Amino acid sequence: MSNQKLFNVAVVGATGAVGEQILNLLDKRNFPIKELKLLSSARSAGTKITFKGQEVTVEEAKPESFKGIDIALFSAGGDVTKALAPHAVEYGTVCIDNTNAYRMDPNTPLVVPEVNIDKVSEHKGIIANPNCSTIQMVAALKPLQDKYGINRIIVSTYQAVSGAGAKAIEEMLRQTRASLDGEAVNPAILPVGSLPVKHQIAFNAIPQIDKFQENGYTLEEMKMVNETKKILDDQTIEVTATCVRIPVVYGHSESVFVELKNNYDLEDVKQLLSDAPGVVLVDDPANQLYPLATEAAGKPEVFVGRLRRDLGHENGLNLWIVSDNLLKGAAWNAVQIAEHIAQA
Amino acid sequence: MSNQKLFNVAVVGATGAVGEQILNLLDKRNFPIKELKLLSSARSAGTKITFKGQEVTVEEAKPESFKGIDIALFSAGGDVTKALAPHAVEYGTVCIDNTNAYRMDPNTPLVVPEVNIDKVSEHKGIIANPNCSTIQMVAALKPLQDKYGINRIIVSTYQAVSGAGAKAIEEMLRQTRASLDGEAVNPAILPVGSLPVKHQIAFNAIPQIDKFQENGYTLEEMKMVNETKKILDDQTIEVTATCVRIPVVYGHSESVFVELKNNYDLEDVKQLLSDAPGVVLVDDPANQLYPLATEAAGKPEVFVGRLRRDLGHENGLNLWIVSDNLLKGAAWNAVQIAEHIAQA
Repeated sequence: MSNQKLFNVAVVGATGAVGEQILNLLDKRNFPIKELKLLSSARSAGTKITFKGQEVTVEEAKPESFKGIDIALFSAGGDVTKALAPHAVEYGTVCIDNTNAYRMDPNTPLVVPEVNIDKVSEHKGIIANPNCSTIQMVAALKPLQDKYGINRIIVSTYQAVSGAGAKAIEEMLRQTRASLDGEAVNPAILPVGSLPVKHQIAFNAIPQIDKFQENGYTLEEMKMVNETKKILDDQTIEVTATCVRIPVVYGHSESVFVELKNNYDLEDVKQLLSDAPGVVLVDDPANQLYPLATEAAGKPEVFVGRLRRDLGHENGLNLWIVSDNLLKGAAWNAVQIAEHIAQA
Repeated sequence: MSNQKLFNVAVVGATGAVGEQILNLLDKRNFPIKELKLLSSARSAGTKITFKGQEVTVEEAKPESFKGIDIALFSAGGDVTKALAPHAVEYGTVCIDNTNAYRMDPNTPLVVPEVNIDKVSEHKGIIANPNCSTIQMVAALKPLQDKYGINRIIVSTYQAVSGAGAKAIEEMLRQTRASLDGEAVNPAILPVGSLPVKHQIAFNAIPQIDKFQENGYTLEEMKMVNETKKILDDQTIEVTATCVRIPVVYGHSESVFVELKNNYDLEDVKQLLSDAPGVVLVDDPANQLYPLATEAAGKPEVFVGRLRRDLGHENGLNLWIVSDNLLKGAAWNAVQIAEHIAQA
């Protein structure tokens, strides 16, 4: 390994929930780092973070921060990416962006390594990491698309509050304790920090993640619709999503109906998913085994179970897909892409 | 009102969560009661319950308990109904059963008053109250069926723990506090009390409600499939369900995709639901208004929102349906049927 190429790596949004997971993974995976630069907003600059025994001071992210940086991992919000990534690209940095800023840009590959790692080579400086709820779904559906084709997807999500950031987690835990103690819950952040109306998340299910669009769908739902078509590289797939926040800390669950193009064999589908990279089949109803958010939390894989034939459509299949939204849904997918670039 | 006919009423399972709600409703609605008999298992017999200022002692339910009883409301489990309702029928009692015992019996009407109250007249002594998750869905879909026809329903549920009884609520609250305090949660009841494997419900989503059937669906899911077809009186409707328990105390939420037979006008659908009996339209995305379990709890209506055109199928419609599972999902639906009988 002494001849291994080393990279100057920047993490933008180093103090956030996803940034923290990215640093954990770069450490655990022994990513070939020459120099690590930690970047954040002016507000968090000055924070000290220990990485592999060395204290690194977080700096304010500026256009010139990227000079000499080979790979930058962005997870500081779409506005930060839009403001800084073009400058980074000019410095020759390859940007792996975990925000919504460039996902639907036709010049930007949208990559889930298990699905379309080949798209990385088409990048023009930026590679987009898909939305958390999309990643786990397409990772599980890709083997079925390859073998049987997909006509249609109808998904309802059960999403963890960590997807809305550390403050949302704090809010849910605070509200939960207040509710248990018979006190007022005082919603302040969820469902959407920047919008005026707040709803209780403790012991509730909120059918709004991100802002509503003109068509009545939320942005989160439209991300699932549009990103799924782009990643699976088929605009003819009909996708409908209902995205719901529930009182779970880590791990998104998804109830997915998929109508395949061709008749399928259920045992073959189970085998395909058993063999699929990054996917773990947990499907043993007799022993009450199926994927659970609490068990997926902290793990990098996508867990799939409750596989069963639709009772109506002969090519219909129902399944339950669970993954840690901060890992495969964000940090781990980004680090997988970075590793692919480092190995190229 | 002095000439109003009065009835001898029995409540079987009077000490349970649904029994308690039935008694509340009989009181609040001033049900025309001559004599009230409270029945339970031998274990709970002797409990004293105050009804309209009078203390009533709960008696052990036996076949002869129904002598002279006009109307009996059962919610003490399917085995109790099977053991006792036939005797009650012999005594001339009209039984309104809140269990699964007779729902699919072709001789037993399965009734949601807003949908098929006319079926009550066909009873042969027993009228079945449908499953909680079915009731709220068919109440919301009936006006759409009448106007546009229904081809297909795909539903994913977000079900409250109160549906599994008072002990499940206690378990969830205990686990939640333990989890907040960093202690072991020790699952003991959910997902299914009588099965060996237990899962954490605090901060989790469990895709199992009731036992698995041979086809890979749970009994709860098959209840939704079969009861929906029976109540909507159309065996050709394709129904698929995924039933999930989430950490909510009261109020089931449902993400429903419905494919209508005919092209529809979205504004007309909203108007139909606005006008539908027992249904409240809460659908104002601009003001972040949609049905929420915490707001439906304690109310008798079915709340519907997030109405939007499917992005794939032109006759497809997505909606979010929420109701208190112990009220419209159980006690209130049963008391509505009892009121219909009393008024006949």
